[in-house]
Amino acid sequence: MKITVVTSNANKAAEVAAFFHGAVEVGHIPLDIPETRSEDVGEIALGKARYAFGQLKTPLIVDDTGLFINALNGFPGPYAAYVQHAIGNTGILKLMEGRVDRTARFTTAIAFTDENGTRVFKGSLEGRISSSPRGDSGFGYDPIFETGKKTLAEIGVEEKNRISHRAKALAAFHDWFLEEFRDRIDTNG
Amino acid sequence: MKITVVTSNANKAAEVAAFFHGAVEVGHIPLDIPETRSEDVGEIALGKARYAFGQLKTPLIVDDTGLFINALNGFPGPYAAYVQHAIGNTGILKLMEGRVDRTARFTTAIAFTDENGTRVFKGSLEGRISSSPRGDSGFGYDPIFETGKKTLAEIGVEEKNRISHRAKALAAFHDWFLEEFRDRIDTNG
Repeated sequence: MKITVVTSNANKAAEVAAFFHGAVEVGHIPLDIPETRSEDVGEIALGKARYAFGQLKTPLIVDDTGLFINALNGFPGPYAAYVQHAIGNTGILKLMEGRVDRTARFTTAIAFTDENGTRVFKGSLEGRISSSPRGDSGFGYDPIFETGKKTLAEIGVEEKNRISHRAKALAAFHDWFLEEFRDRIDTNG
Repeated sequence: MKITVVTSNANKAAEVAAFFHGAVEVGHIPLDIPETRSEDVGEIALGKARYAFGQLKTPLIVDDTGLFINALNGFPGPYAAYVQHAIGNTGILKLMEGRVDRTARFTTAIAFTDENGTRVFKGSLEGRISSSPRGDSGFGYDPIFETGKKTLAEIGVEEKNRISHRAKALAAFHDWFLEEFRDRIDTNG
């Protein structure tokens, strides 16, 4: 049994492989995928997975992640990567100046598609936008996203990978996958 | 000769029809179109037009508009509509606080596709982000986008429709179209 991770980021495939402890072969293929505009990362991942399966015809997963800040009507939402690149954490903190409600949520959706259809798995991490950047690890919004008293950049990569939205989505996918394909997987691998 | 405007906004089709003064039949069809993520509205319009033609098999146009603010690395770019909805002009003005370079550009791309391929027509309007919202006409970013000394919301809809990025793109498309299909169009209509 093989899963193809459709991504230009080889690290993502390695992360999925690690999750399965060698029970499943994991490959990766970069592919430019047109996407449905939606504020729901699940819908985006689902559309991308279907498109990719149409091209590649092999069991695959695609993921999509968004950051949703309540005081900003869900901004930057599924455009988190673009917005980080354009206005950075400085821009987000500026937009949040004077805001009392600093609650925010990261959500990752993973869509798995094979010849039988598509399933979407989601994981979320609730937190708050800090008043200033703190911490050195991670990337992107990590220095301004607090979970508990620390930002994701302060808790370190190992702890982040244990509690993150992405880890939760991967865990949900992992558990379903092993159950669904138990007859075709060598779990002693 | 008929052109289908792929849009959920009937006003857009009426605007195109007005541009052709009845020489061409203009219809409109709403269609959910997945799109390539790109910071180039031309590339987005082109991808959407190709997808729509694959579904509809009739000569059609699709458009896409972006607002590019230089001091914000082109933000909000092709996500202008989403960003307007989420953080509004208040958010943009906040991000621009203290910025000396206030130059910005609207660009509309119109992509026409028929069985012979796709052509993209662009129109741009250079301007500046104002220090505060001014004027009552128009919508979206109009109150904070200055062209000359007035904002688009101050110059009024008629003048805006004469000078706008969208009008320029439509004019370029119109002129090419009448030349390209002159044998099939009744310009006395």
